[in-house]
Amino acid sequence: MAERIRSASLRKKVMSAAEAAAFIKDGMVVGMSGFTGSGYPKAVPTALAEQMQAAHDKGDPFRISVLTGASTGPELDGALGKANGMSFRSPFNTDPACRDRINNGETDFLDIHLGQVAQFADQGVLGDMDVAVIEVSAINEDGTLVPSSSIGNNVTWLKLAKKVIIEVSHWQSLDLDGIHDIYDFGLPPDRKPIPLTKPSDLIGTHYLTCDPEKIVAVVEAELPDRNAPFKAADEGARKIAGYLLDFLGNEVKKGRLPEHLLPLQSGVGNVANAVLAGLVDSPFENMTAYTEVIQDGMLDLLDCGKLTVASATAFSLSPEAAEKINANMGNYRGRLILRPQDVSNSAEVIRRLGCIAMNSLIEADIFGNVNSTHVMGSRMQNGIGGSGDFARNSYISIFVTPSVAKGGKISSIVPHVAHTDHLTQDVDVLVTEMGLADLRGLAPRKRAEAIIANCVHPDYQPLLEDYYRRALRSSYGLHAPTLLNEALSFHQRFVETGSMLPA
Amino acid sequence: MAERIRSASLRKKVMSAAEAAAFIKDGMVVGMSGFTGSGYPKAVPTALAEQMQAAHDKGDPFRISVLTGASTGPELDGALGKANGMSFRSPFNTDPACRDRINNGETDFLDIHLGQVAQFADQGVLGDMDVAVIEVSAINEDGTLVPSSSIGNNVTWLKLAKKVIIEVSHWQSLDLDGIHDIYDFGLPPDRKPIPLTKPSDLIGTHYLTCDPEKIVAVVEAELPDRNAPFKAADEGARKIAGYLLDFLGNEVKKGRLPEHLLPLQSGVGNVANAVLAGLVDSPFENMTAYTEVIQDGMLDLLDCGKLTVASATAFSLSPEAAEKINANMGNYRGRLILRPQDVSNSAEVIRRLGCIAMNSLIEADIFGNVNSTHVMGSRMQNGIGGSGDFARNSYISIFVTPSVAKGGKISSIVPHVAHTDHLTQDVDVLVTEMGLADLRGLAPRKRAEAIIANCVHPDYQPLLEDYYRRALRSSYGLHAPTLLNEALSFHQRFVETGSMLPA
Repeated sequence: MAERIRSASLRKKVMSAAEAAAFIKDGMVVGMSGFTGSGYPKAVPTALAEQMQAAHDKGDPFRISVLTGASTGPELDGALGKANGMSFRSPFNTDPACRDRINNGETDFLDIHLGQVAQFADQGVLGDMDVAVIEVSAINEDGTLVPSSSIGNNVTWLKLAKKVIIEVSHWQSLDLDGIHDIYDFGLPPDRKPIPLTKPSDLIGTHYLTCDPEKIVAVVEAELPDRNAPFKAADEGARKIAGYLLDFLGNEVKKGRLPEHLLPLQSGVGNVANAVLAGLVDSPFENMTAYTEVIQDGMLDLLDCGKLTVASATAFSLSPEAAEKINANMGNYRGRLILRPQDVSNSAEVIRRLGCIAMNSLIEADIFGNVNSTHVMGSRMQNGIGGSGDFARNSYISIFVTPSVAKGGKISSIVPHVAHTDHLTQDVDVLVTEMGLADLRGLAPRKRAEAIIANCVHPDYQPLLEDYYRRALRSSYGLHAPTLLNEALSFHQRFVETGSMLPA
Repeated sequence: MAERIRSASLRKKVMSAAEAAAFIKDGMVVGMSGFTGSGYPKAVPTALAEQMQAAHDKGDPFRISVLTGASTGPELDGALGKANGMSFRSPFNTDPACRDRINNGETDFLDIHLGQVAQFADQGVLGDMDVAVIEVSAINEDGTLVPSSSIGNNVTWLKLAKKVIIEVSHWQSLDLDGIHDIYDFGLPPDRKPIPLTKPSDLIGTHYLTCDPEKIVAVVEAELPDRNAPFKAADEGARKIAGYLLDFLGNEVKKGRLPEHLLPLQSGVGNVANAVLAGLVDSPFENMTAYTEVIQDGMLDLLDCGKLTVASATAFSLSPEAAEKINANMGNYRGRLILRPQDVSNSAEVIRRLGCIAMNSLIEADIFGNVNSTHVMGSRMQNGIGGSGDFARNSYISIFVTPSVAKGGKISSIVPHVAHTDHLTQDVDVLVTEMGLADLRGLAPRKRAEAIIANCVHPDYQPLLEDYYRRALRSSYGLHAPTLLNEALSFHQRFVETGSMLPA
């Protein structure tokens, strides 16, 4: 215990997860740590879910509002989702049990740009925070907190919460000490420029602080982060990576990008990892990353020396990569930096650095509007996450996707997105395994021609060509030709028949 | 001549507008000054349009790409639009002749966030700039240029263009000298923090610079800026202003806003002016504005002492206000500041200052997605302008609109926007003459209830209530209940019958 809980006064507050969870009552607003399955509390939410279930079994109400950094894992969103213990959830979720509650109308889900969550909470419009539950890797003698594998909104939760529960993880590496850079952006009118001009800059302190009076419980836990394995890149993902690397190479040749590129941002997932894997074998050297999440692919780039530094707010690793990095965390100090999510996802910093943003999507339309969140316009997948922070403010905003999903029953390119997360203004390049469309500088009709010609699966190409041809004849206006009564017909067909393809 | 053209070497380049226009040839990319009808060249574009018309009359092609700061006036977009002389236009237009060309498919229009135009041009994706035509109020002895009533993208156009035509306006006040603050944000990886922490900060120089070798012509002109009269505020606009002022007052009472508020941004138009007029009689003192455009209402606030400083990139005044300010420009120095549009609309600065953004819209849907640009999804109205720069990055993003348009035939609230410019994430408060919906912290179903209850015109309320009730029963997912086959039915009905109301 003393190795990780070095403050004698806080050692006195050690208790069981069940005892700590009892501080959380029906109707409370609870801020938890956690971002993309890392650094979230595990023991306390599991105990809390049991107490909720027990209350529900007796017919008593027990539901809370849960705010986090981003997605967590089965012990938090999974357990609370199964217990139907969340009346409100924000800002991001990937857990299937929680997603079901959201989409059957039992849980209100508020989808916020991850870079702006702290500001909303600070404004008070997400409710008064009753309790924060924060995972840390250690507590220092002076009571300062060594964060674990994500920082997320912890600075803000520790500031706003009336009571704080600290969950000390024995699974997290002790060598995480020193990789965090805590900076408080504050509130207007007193905000100052964030003094960060390259991804490697350290602008803050290593430790989180919290008024010790507010800490009501310290809980010890040993469970690992979610650390889901990534699927190996398939041929489609490798093709997408190939088109993208060619594009970046050409931009360098044309003098539009520096030879070391600009700081990379990469969304999470299979295709993103394939692109990062492609960069390992690319001619680019001395690259940097200013991103949200450190995936396996980023570690590989650091390990092979292609990437000099990666700045993010969280890890999101496979179990193998997590084990490897946990054994060698000290070696990454100075090359890996974790920041609060309002700094990792800061519009100011992303714009200044000129990040190259690479994100995935659910669907794009022929003009390049992108839907990242709402399946068929109404079902929440995960949330917009940081994609808006990066796509809007990047130097080049790239979206990558397989051209079809569900074995070809869904086209990733549709006449009209059923929900918009990224405007045509924020979508510069679209890449599928069919090809790449460079949309920069193109007006809507030219964008449609480029997307239909380069990115669409052959099963859907004739349908989209036919739609667009008829739209050019019958649209109300020809700026962005649209057939209102067919714009959402692909989605309608899928909902009715299970496929966007006509019978 | 010598009063305004103080450089002897540049005086030698004075020529007629027709001679200067002859530097512009078919197929060229031309950058012009001008923002919201102010500071745009008048004589050269008029002469150019005549030369285009003459070419077209002979059967010769003569069309160009035109980039500006934002909207211009009849002598530029009007004349070139009538002559069908623009193959490509970006980033914003309010001229009816140009709009017709865009919507009948003759002119490609590229709609860009105004704060990002310079970066796109710098990247080279808007084409190599052949000629820049820049209105100034004077040329100094050392060849530096005193900008006129807007700055827009002039820094970038002067840097990128191969040839430069300077149009010296004798209409503009000589006392504009000193109100400009020119700062070059530059390109990554060399960008630094923009050192601006309050709207009154001066961070640059007063004058534009241009390699004198590139200046091929200096033209004298005397035409006034567009200076369109604003409609007086009607009762609806005054009601909207009333709700909004109550809201701001309550935020101050709750301690969520400082007593002097935060820097105001206000879009252009009738309702915006009514809100500003309402602030004249409000209890708020020592307010500031960090905005895009100085309208009549902003001047009134400065004149009555309620506003201490207004920072923008351009004026957009009524003829009376323009006359008044031209006679007294010196008195406003230090209280009025014009900046390049990538500074006035900088994501970094807007976020830091925590602006209160107030913008208008074409339509919002029941979840608070906003369409600012595409009438019935396909006809371009003006462009997104700076609304995205401000709405996304503001501390509170407010949208204001009458609840109906076209005498009640169009509802400003629809089941589903036909195009999205502002995501629900970027729309905090929605106000119509029916009432105000504070959407902050609300998940989609709660947003829908608030909007339908507070903002909708009574003619459309039963229709939207019925739609939403049925969507709650039959939607694919209940996160954001949607009936795909009715989502765009209001628009379809308008296109078919001329009204969104059923017969």
